[in-house]
Amino acid sequence: MPPAKAGNPRLKSSAKNVPALEYIFHPRSIALVGAATDPVHWWINEYYIDPLVKFGYTGKVYPVNPKGGEAKGMKIYRSLAEIDGPIDHVISAIPARSCPDLVRECRDRGVKLVQFFSAGFAETGDPQGIAIQNEIVEIAKGSGMRLLGPNCMGLYCPNTKISFCFNYPQESGPIGLISQSGSNSTYVVRSAVVRGLRFSKIVSHGNACDINECDLLEYFTDDPDTKVIAAYIEGIKDGPRFRRALARAAATKPVVIYKGGFSEAGGRAAATHTGSLAGSYAAFESLLRQLGAIPVQSVGEMVDMLVAILHMKPPRGRNLCAVGNGGGGSVLATDEFERAGFRLPGIPPEVREHIRKLVPPAGSMTRNPIDAAPLMGIEQARLLAKTGLKDWEKGLWNARFQRGDGGMGDFVGALDDWPGLDFLVLHYCIDSVPGGIYSWQLTTGGGPLIVAAKESRLPVATVIHFIANEDSWLKSLKIQKLCIDCGFPLFLSMKGAARAIRRLMEFDRDHPGMVEKIQASLK
Amino acid sequence: MPPAKAGNPRLKSSAKNVPALEYIFHPRSIALVGAATDPVHWWINEYYIDPLVKFGYTGKVYPVNPKGGEAKGMKIYRSLAEIDGPIDHVISAIPARSCPDLVRECRDRGVKLVQFFSAGFAETGDPQGIAIQNEIVEIAKGSGMRLLGPNCMGLYCPNTKISFCFNYPQESGPIGLISQSGSNSTYVVRSAVVRGLRFSKIVSHGNACDINECDLLEYFTDDPDTKVIAAYIEGIKDGPRFRRALARAAATKPVVIYKGGFSEAGGRAAATHTGSLAGSYAAFESLLRQLGAIPVQSVGEMVDMLVAILHMKPPRGRNLCAVGNGGGGSVLATDEFERAGFRLPGIPPEVREHIRKLVPPAGSMTRNPIDAAPLMGIEQARLLAKTGLKDWEKGLWNARFQRGDGGMGDFVGALDDWPGLDFLVLHYCIDSVPGGIYSWQLTTGGGPLIVAAKESRLPVATVIHFIANEDSWLKSLKIQKLCIDCGFPLFLSMKGAARAIRRLMEFDRDHPGMVEKIQASLK
Repeated sequence: MPPAKAGNPRLKSSAKNVPALEYIFHPRSIALVGAATDPVHWWINEYYIDPLVKFGYTGKVYPVNPKGGEAKGMKIYRSLAEIDGPIDHVISAIPARSCPDLVRECRDRGVKLVQFFSAGFAETGDPQGIAIQNEIVEIAKGSGMRLLGPNCMGLYCPNTKISFCFNYPQESGPIGLISQSGSNSTYVVRSAVVRGLRFSKIVSHGNACDINECDLLEYFTDDPDTKVIAAYIEGIKDGPRFRRALARAAATKPVVIYKGGFSEAGGRAAATHTGSLAGSYAAFESLLRQLGAIPVQSVGEMVDMLVAILHMKPPRGRNLCAVGNGGGGSVLATDEFERAGFRLPGIPPEVREHIRKLVPPAGSMTRNPIDAAPLMGIEQARLLAKTGLKDWEKGLWNARFQRGDGGMGDFVGALDDWPGLDFLVLHYCIDSVPGGIYSWQLTTGGGPLIVAAKESRLPVATVIHFIANEDSWLKSLKIQKLCIDCGFPLFLSMKGAARAIRRLMEFDRDHPGMVEKIQASLK
Repeated sequence: MPPAKAGNPRLKSSAKNVPALEYIFHPRSIALVGAATDPVHWWINEYYIDPLVKFGYTGKVYPVNPKGGEAKGMKIYRSLAEIDGPIDHVISAIPARSCPDLVRECRDRGVKLVQFFSAGFAETGDPQGIAIQNEIVEIAKGSGMRLLGPNCMGLYCPNTKISFCFNYPQESGPIGLISQSGSNSTYVVRSAVVRGLRFSKIVSHGNACDINECDLLEYFTDDPDTKVIAAYIEGIKDGPRFRRALARAAATKPVVIYKGGFSEAGGRAAATHTGSLAGSYAAFESLLRQLGAIPVQSVGEMVDMLVAILHMKPPRGRNLCAVGNGGGGSVLATDEFERAGFRLPGIPPEVREHIRKLVPPAGSMTRNPIDAAPLMGIEQARLLAKTGLKDWEKGLWNARFQRGDGGMGDFVGALDDWPGLDFLVLHYCIDSVPGGIYSWQLTTGGGPLIVAAKESRLPVATVIHFIANEDSWLKSLKIQKLCIDCGFPLFLSMKGAARAIRRLMEFDRDHPGMVEKIQASLK
């Protein structure tokens, strides 16, 4: 099915190098067929109407339901026929059996993209569902109208103010996400947002009856707003084309791929979920590596990898120094990094002497990993004495912890003088404190080290971990944000950090300069 | 060093089978030497005074500091000499160099246990620190007074109202925890509490200059309040004794051991942290397995294992059915369970027919894993229609979802009729919902299935997962609590659930009846 001509005044379609699918992100109007007219089905409007209102989408929005009436002050149209003017994008939230008629109407009306929230198609495995899916494809064929899904969430594009979730970020970012699963796309976004990541576009494509993973890989390869591609894929429709599309994508940008349905039943689940043929995971993973993509096995690993690619300066070698609070966390930290193939060399005598001058009871600070809790305590007291509890936040930035002040600035300076050291891992355990958890205390405890590390010559990773419940989550948000604001990669587990940094180094070795160029473009 | 005679009227020392160390949990009085007299050092009182007040410890509490004065309405004694009456337990929070004098004074005063929060001993690796540690051991030798630490948090025993953290649970439970690291002990407790677990006693023993992991293993083996032993250990002081102690412990109760410091640098970290000789991890793990203990590699794994042992009925075989909301989560679920060696067999036709009668658009429910989102939606609507939004919580329990109501009760009944099925995994994804997250919605969505599963003949595991931020943590607390209230094991990741259940089955095979007996004793 060839892509439709854009014919859309919002899109400079005459511009060179506009990717074929670009126009689907620039609809002049959006109709939700199957909009809720009563409070029981409110959620469908929450998914597809609320985000447009909240993001400030400037096109026309048409809720459609034969019952008519009003939804949140908007007129509900009884049918597409009742709507005047062009309809570029239709979202279907009606039962599968009614979809063929809708697709016919859309085709005749000149709609450019129909996205199906509707499920009950090929993913059911039932002959009837498969037949309906084949029927809608058949109806659209040759018309130029594209189909997205069925059984998917659709499009998110903050630049053009469209989203299927009102609380996705309104600002744009460098990641293009392809997600065959709607629920995984939301889990990826929510997990990524707290780590400081943002997205250029997201497409949840479900059963992929028309627009599929190859179309989307090709699109994101050419999309200038997308610097890194992330994809959750359950099955591949066209092996040879996928291979070509991925090879070109991976030669252009980092591509992180999470393949679901690796196992016998997982494959069956994927079939049920989006009607995909899953294939063998081992074969797929080896194909990914061969083509230069980065395979991951969970949403958590995917987000860790994106954090590393976008915010971690690739280390030149495997020697790190870990600095944090608390012994249990230090032991864990080094276990995980050595498990991932890194080394924590002993501190050279001259560096150790320098550090010991900064902290009188330097007992716990003479080896690598460094339990810097004593120095953190001193710096916290100094910061609070200087700025007071009320102004500690301002103080944290103003103090700057530069060299020559006998504190964290000099501590970081001493580590800079360590020959052969390749990177620093700064970590802070939250639920290791046996008393109460206080947001200011966490930030003034770990903050001076993090702020001082901005001056380091070395790549830095930050790990805020040992978060055991909702209270420590909430209270650690400020120190998490501090890591992000300082431009460091923020990890929430030591294992995740170790694995992602190892793979970043492998990727950087195989794609020299690619990561550096992306990171420079984001500054 | 032989244990001191108890000589403590609070403890029926004449009773048979009282473990040797029992008396340390029954002090008549506790002195904190190095109590804070000013707001800068408030935290030391928060660690060691506040919990005694909050828990309602009925013995005497003596803050001690040469400066005197008052702390939170308590008199601060200038010295131990100023205190009348017996002092059973002294907590040292003074610098290492002052500790030998303190130990001498305690010995002469007839103190039974000195615990050292103080650090700066053998864990520093410095000759001076090692010398001071040797000196305090030498001073106490032969006196019958025991030393705990140095460089440790000390004792938690809710039954006798002592704790080193005011927000640890005040109610007792079946787990005895040995933790060489103070920070790990807090991380274990906070991670375990949200999963419904409670502790009989915790001992954080740091450098273990006197009371060591062998003493504690022997104690917890004989402690009737402790049904399961968990231990975080960095090093072993006496290999042959450890082997004997562990063999006896593991023959008596499940013993879950997390060994920190497995790697070269991890071992160095452990040495720095608690002055331990870490040894080879592989050798240690093989010893643990040989002796019947359960090795784990992180706090998270430890807590998953404890949850499984205490709340999961050991499945008879490897065939499971996974039921949840959302396709991405279902695919992940089955990938993780098959990776852990389980099987998700296809649904037999008669079971499928039964299920399909319950849900008209049963498309997504005809295979294993089952994406039960449609049925969950119907049950949610039915519950809300019956009880209203205001009373849904009461309704959730009152409705009971029994057989014959055409809903979740019959759905669970249909699964019960599945021959050869060994257990159920019920999972609920939180951050897969693209709209807002509402606590009532999560609970009424997943709740009916969970409550109905109480009637199942099959072992049940519950997994509340896809929790990406503090908001979804907070809002999922109610559905998490529902799983705990129903008596099901609560896991927060599918991978964690799969691994823990596999190891539970291995443990149950090797120790027939032990898990069942413990679970029966807790009802």
